[in-house]
Amino acid sequence: MSAPIIAIDAMGGDFGPRNIVQASLACLTATPSLHLVLVGQASLIEELIARHGAVDRSRLRVVNANEAIAMDERPSQALRGKPDSSMRVALELVASGQAQACVSAGNTGALMALSRFVLKTLPGIDRPAMIAAIPTRSGHCQMLDLGANVDCSAEALYQFAVMGSVLAETLGVKKPRVALLNVGTEDIKGNQQVKLAAGLLQAAQGLNYIGYIEGDGLYRGEADVVVCDGFVGNVLLKSSEGLASMIAARIDTLFNRNLLSRAVGALALPLLKRLQTDLAPARHNGASLLGLQGIVVKSHGSASVSGFQSAIQRAIVESRENLPQRLKGRLELLLQNGQT
Amino acid sequence: MSAPIIAIDAMGGDFGPRNIVQASLACLTATPSLHLVLVGQASLIEELIARHGAVDRSRLRVVNANEAIAMDERPSQALRGKPDSSMRVALELVASGQAQACVSAGNTGALMALSRFVLKTLPGIDRPAMIAAIPTRSGHCQMLDLGANVDCSAEALYQFAVMGSVLAETLGVKKPRVALLNVGTEDIKGNQQVKLAAGLLQAAQGLNYIGYIEGDGLYRGEADVVVCDGFVGNVLLKSSEGLASMIAARIDTLFNRNLLSRAVGALALPLLKRLQTDLAPARHNGASLLGLQGIVVKSHGSASVSGFQSAIQRAIVESRENLPQRLKGRLELLLQNGQT
Repeated sequence: MSAPIIAIDAMGGDFGPRNIVQASLACLTATPSLHLVLVGQASLIEELIARHGAVDRSRLRVVNANEAIAMDERPSQALRGKPDSSMRVALELVASGQAQACVSAGNTGALMALSRFVLKTLPGIDRPAMIAAIPTRSGHCQMLDLGANVDCSAEALYQFAVMGSVLAETLGVKKPRVALLNVGTEDIKGNQQVKLAAGLLQAAQGLNYIGYIEGDGLYRGEADVVVCDGFVGNVLLKSSEGLASMIAARIDTLFNRNLLSRAVGALALPLLKRLQTDLAPARHNGASLLGLQGIVVKSHGSASVSGFQSAIQRAIVESRENLPQRLKGRLELLLQNGQT
Repeated sequence: MSAPIIAIDAMGGDFGPRNIVQASLACLTATPSLHLVLVGQASLIEELIARHGAVDRSRLRVVNANEAIAMDERPSQALRGKPDSSMRVALELVASGQAQACVSAGNTGALMALSRFVLKTLPGIDRPAMIAAIPTRSGHCQMLDLGANVDCSAEALYQFAVMGSVLAETLGVKKPRVALLNVGTEDIKGNQQVKLAAGLLQAAQGLNYIGYIEGDGLYRGEADVVVCDGFVGNVLLKSSEGLASMIAARIDTLFNRNLLSRAVGALALPLLKRLQTDLAPARHNGASLLGLQGIVVKSHGSASVSGFQSAIQRAIVESRENLPQRLKGRLELLLQNGQT
């Protein structure tokens, strides 16, 4: 456990392997117990490694994979047509126990499909969900699903709630407050799936379910875990990123109007930059695919070097905490309650 | 057309009739051709009017209604159990031609149900949609539905697109770019309803349909009309309000840290306030219920006096433009295309 081995899909993402290799080498230096396996076109990866100075090759392995999955490729095609893709080979290293976790910045749909096929879901879980931390007034909340499942049954939402609660506990939150995202807080509000999921959650024991939450309540920090289907979660995440960028741009314009305001802006700049990073957590920190028999972290396709480093860091934490095993134990108990 | 008569539900909203009467009297003063009918508990309304100085009573009528609909009342109860509610009487004034528009800050679900029952929908429209302007980097976009319909068929999304396009044209946008909100821009992305709606929109003539848009693209100003179901729209709207408030609070904290930053903050304050108002359009400007045989504007339940004034202003514009008649004409043509 103290020396996690992490498989990196070196070919995924919008910018090719350059950023990914750079981030990987930086993590190796920063975490002396870390072992990495870079998966992809070996000659290209070796060339990129050679550009760097001293690299501890005893902790770095390169595994060749001849194919790469395009960002717009259909998941079904990635699953059936590319047995030797870098993403798949990286996942197979986890399945065979040669690595504890896989990190990829590649095609989300393909990563979801391949993860389910190669690693399988935990008992009681139908589909994995994507989860990330969203900043709130009082800290952070864990939100899921962020886009892996566009349609969700009430049972799926229930499973997400259970998984989100366990993850939050693992990260140190005591009795995490779990809420369902809805268009109002009254009982009569919402669509059929959400109302049925509320019934399952009210009946569940061992979960601190606090009821419905609205979009503004999320940012007020009213819950530690916010559950929704992947369509809604994805729209919320991306629109929040877009809004934060728009506000940043407007503030920028304001502060650049004249000499005085430019001086003022220079003072405020570090905080505003920090704020932007905070508000694009998926882009910067990576998201986990939860509910699999193995750890999979999705880095944003356009993540910077430091963004990909954060995703690797997340995989290290989940490996050390042995998250799938923890989830499995808690799920057995909690899901029994929900499925009676 | 030059002298619109607007019926005001004086009893709706979180703060009772005080704000509403005050906003109404301010609008009467600001718009000399405007006629208002205040509907609600007449003695109370008269008392509130009497507190003000000179009021031109030739343009102000009070109509008594003995009942009021609570903010958490079920729409079915409001529909069947309260024949003499202020909201219903105000809508009946529109239905009977005694007013061109109704403005209410009351229960959204009840307003939706009563509007459909009292005013009926336009030919070809199954359910009205709620629409409001959302700020973007390049100006505004019209987004619908914002919460009136939590589940939407592909046909409903198509109808929303047509109505949104006509509204944007009415407001002066030439060939409005219409987009469907989705979790990606590739064809394979999205749930079943969205994919089917995309097919209908691609086949429609006379609509400038530009394809899918993501949450961040909305704020980048990539479309003039953004279409989604009411669950997604409501979550996007409320989470955006929540995020904008959170950012404002963080900036506030930053600027209050020391004397220098306080001076800096004082300089930035007017813009930041303006930004917050901009980012909560539903709270400040009101939203329209589109697709009815009459004009209905929903003010936010917790709207301030100036917020309710904006909602009345919106009703004035829609009355002058005779929006339902315009919509009817365009819908006949466009919906024929989509329903073959």
